Amino acid sequence: MEPFLVLPQTQPPQPPDLNRRLKKLTSILDVTKAMSAERDLDLLLPLILYEASKVVEADRCSLFVLDRERNELWSKVAQGSKSEIRLPVGNGIAGQVAQTGEVINLPDAYADERFNRTFDNLSGYRTQSVLCVPMRDANGEVTGVIQALNKLSGHPFDSEDEELLLALGAQAAGAIENALLHEEINRLFEGFVSASVVAIESRDPTTAGHSGRVADLTVAMARALEHVNTGLYAHTRFSVTELQELRYASLLHDFGKVGVREPVLVKAEKLYPHELEGLRARFQLARKDLQLQSYRRRLAAAKLRGTHHLAEIDAEEDARLAQELKQLDEVLEFVLTCNRPTVLAQGNFERLHELRSLRFQDAFDQERSLLLDREIQSLSIAKGTLSEEERREIESHVEHTYRFLSQIPWTRTLRRVPEIAYAHHEKLDGTGYPRAVPDKSIPVQSRMMSIADIYDALTASDRPYKKAVPHQLALDILKKEAHSGQLDVELFRIFVEAEIPKRALRESRG
Amino acid sequence: MEPFLVLPQTQPPQPPDLNRRLKKLTSILDVTKAMSAERDLDLLLPLILYEASKVVEADRCSLFVLDRERNELWSKVAQGSKSEIRLPVGNGIAGQVAQTGEVINLPDAYADERFNRTFDNLSGYRTQSVLCVPMRDANGEVTGVIQALNKLSGHPFDSEDEELLLALGAQAAGAIENALLHEEINRLFEGFVSASVVAIESRDPTTAGHSGRVADLTVAMARALEHVNTGLYAHTRFSVTELQELRYASLLHDFGKVGVREPVLVKAEKLYPHELEGLRARFQLARKDLQLQSYRRRLAAAKLRGTHHLAEIDAEEDARLAQELKQLDEVLEFVLTCNRPTVLAQGNFERLHELRSLRFQDAFDQERSLLLDREIQSLSIAKGTLSEEERREIESHVEHTYRFLSQIPWTRTLRRVPEIAYAHHEKLDGTGYPRAVPDKSIPVQSRMMSIADIYDALTASDRPYKKAVPHQLALDILKKEAHSGQLDVELFRIFVEAEIPKRALRESRG
Repeated sequence: MEPFLVLPQTQPPQPPDLNRRLKKLTSILDVTKAMSAERDLDLLLPLILYEASKVVEADRCSLFVLDRERNELWSKVAQGSKSEIRLPVGNGIAGQVAQTGEVINLPDAYADERFNRTFDNLSGYRTQSVLCVPMRDANGEVTGVIQALNKLSGHPFDSEDEELLLALGAQAAGAIENALLHEEINRLFEGFVSASVVAIESRDPTTAGHSGRVADLTVAMARALEHVNTGLYAHTRFSVTELQELRYASLLHDFGKVGVREPVLVKAEKLYPHELEGLRARFQLARKDLQLQSYRRRLAAAKLRGTHHLAEIDAEEDARLAQELKQLDEVLEFVLTCNRPTVLAQGNFERLHELRSLRFQDAFDQERSLLLDREIQSLSIAKGTLSEEERREIESHVEHTYRFLSQIPWTRTLRRVPEIAYAHHEKLDGTGYPRAVPDKSIPVQSRMMSIADIYDALTASDRPYKKAVPHQLALDILKKEAHSGQLDVELFRIFVEAEIPKRALRESRG
Repeated sequence: MEPFLVLPQTQPPQPPDLNRRLKKLTSILDVTKAMSAERDLDLLLPLILYEASKVVEADRCSLFVLDRERNELWSKVAQGSKSEIRLPVGNGIAGQVAQTGEVINLPDAYADERFNRTFDNLSGYRTQSVLCVPMRDANGEVTGVIQALNKLSGHPFDSEDEELLLALGAQAAGAIENALLHEEINRLFEGFVSASVVAIESRDPTTAGHSGRVADLTVAMARALEHVNTGLYAHTRFSVTELQELRYASLLHDFGKVGVREPVLVKAEKLYPHELEGLRARFQLARKDLQLQSYRRRLAAAKLRGTHHLAEIDAEEDARLAQELKQLDEVLEFVLTCNRPTVLAQGNFERLHELRSLRFQDAFDQERSLLLDREIQSLSIAKGTLSEEERREIESHVEHTYRFLSQIPWTRTLRRVPEIAYAHHEKLDGTGYPRAVPDKSIPVQSRMMSIADIYDALTASDRPYKKAVPHQLALDILKKEAHSGQLDVELFRIFVEAEIPKRALRESRG
């Protein structure tokens, strides 16, 4: 021991006392139980350090986990410090213990050349006695080290301390391994869910990123509820696991779109591209038919009236043909206008139905309709681009989502994921889909998701059937829906006042 | 105590001995460590029972876990029995302890009316002394009970036994909770992966179930290797976690197909349906054009030669038109033949290229090609239905799969999943895709998956571009590929000899 150190050695070390050891072992058992229940590493490590300090009566403790792949020790927390530390195995006291698996017990750290004073120099802490023991897993492999600094009594750590810290370390090793494994599997699950959503969305590039953004918005909203102390949601609070449940429900709310046919999903006009192509080809054929009929008539007229009237016949027929072609071209023009996803004027609706009677002869002289019934039906869609049937197919994605989510064996804390996602298109006034349930049956989580979903659909710049709407206009549209009784007025107010879109962006980046 | 019971009471109960208790507590700490490392409930429960019997010196122990939702106790194992037992909370000794949280210590079970003799009657076991203690979690909630039967000494269980069993039970509660949670998350992950695969496959109903079947076949093959004691794979064995890794890799090997356009995925002829429709429409227009040209010529001839030659002109033109129409219809017939997914004859290839020069006038008198360059290119596909580009797009699914799997944070035991799936289309002779690596770079797992993948693709009855091949023919095709140096000959031999398809079916049902 160095002479310049003055230690409060008022009493010599005590002989082992069976009752005291029994008490300490019992307390290690208690700690073990608390440790095994703590699966959050950020809470587990401080707990271990606190208990380790107590059991060996040290001023502070630190703990290092062995990273075998990199042959390094890392520490998430050194008591009183926050940043991660990494040390090569073999270096310093902790590195030595990790390498050899042997306990190191120093009455005076500064007298030992293996001791690294860097941390003391940086922190101003003065290390005196050090007890450093390995943590071993059930197979006896070293998985880390625990280090106790400065025995409070001022004496060096004794053999009982060694035994107790080894015992505690052994239990801590198991708890840490469990927590790491738990973290790993959670990260794996989370990673798989996110990657699957990206994969599913890649089918429809026009909505890529939508699910992630809806998750960010919805969770930001749930978090914002914490600061709400009045009104209907004054007492609505979400725990960490409830937020996780909400996040998964939001992330997966559109997963069922995988069950909707791709062309329906991205339909930009009333006729599908291949339908329009077929229609155009039919108009070409009808055009050719008008020309052919005209020449047949000319020939027949020539037979009847003689060749000397040919110029006259040509003139008559040219005029008639020009008129007929013009009419046909106008019909096509009109059809193309109807094909656009605007609101159809009443007059157009009737004119479309009159066109049903137009006929022409095909290349085998078979009479055919110029416009097919199903084309007239599609072109008659009053608003948007989807037929009733297609709208139902799109809407069925919620049923698909629910079916998909219901077959997954969620853990107890996540069991409401299917139910929350199921209601994201329901409306408070009972006009939603797929079940059109009344407001009481719509969970608050789904109400929030509804607002987030509509907001993102409006403001996303990438949908083929509508342009991106600016933020303020999107809020106006949402407001109208809220005041008409479809969306939750109070949640909408919170969405606006807490500036959820900004917040979500910040949180998703942070 | 009942008089008819003769117990070996050679010694009175011992007074508490501190050293003995210390030893027992230390042993509980050791057991705790072993328990916390055991995450398989089927191994953990017997371990707890074994240690509990030892610590309180009982003949046997049983353990019940509390199911709060159903208000029942269940037991996966009663030592010496295998089936699951369920008891209502409140019933019997264990049910009482679960309800009240109080220890029950009976010197003579049969003297207590709460004791249920059913199990004794069924098993022929004779219960004498019973010690039943609650297991509590870190919050003090009862999560189950441990019951020790028949103290070996013949004395009743004493207060030290109570204390020790309570201590062990407390640790066991934590370990059981961890194991249950671990099982739950694993089941959740497994369930999510399977459901996602089903969802992805639902895009292409013609290959539904393929991934699951490939997983069953590949894992059955890996299991069959256990009985192989000669040759290259005499020492290749797969651990439980390696089988799990292989299962995930197989289940997800085609996940990247989500990145391949749907029409390419299900292409049944050389031209896509909409392309064929466009081509047919063009032939109709050309047909009409031939008719129109004919009538134009008739009119011109009439002008030149006079009306009295009209019958003659008509006869000439009718013959010519009939000839031209016949030729045109024959060209279409020929094109339709080429469109089928058979091997294209060399002559046909040249004839297709001659057709490149055919022209007609469209409805606006613009000269156009009868066959587009890209149509001729598609129709010239020598084998199958896919162009070089489309084949590359289909093949790119392996790259998509690899990219998808690589972004997932696999746990250490599953980290080779991406690599194994990546190589499932590689060939031993270096002719595979996407990397065309040599045999040494193809993991044995991928070699097995290759065989399973081809076998299922051949025998599945649901692909549009080929009919299902019978089992024996599929083996013949695989054999040819093995002997040509593409597939692993030895693994193929094992596939045949171990009757993997039968085995996989049995295991997936079992």
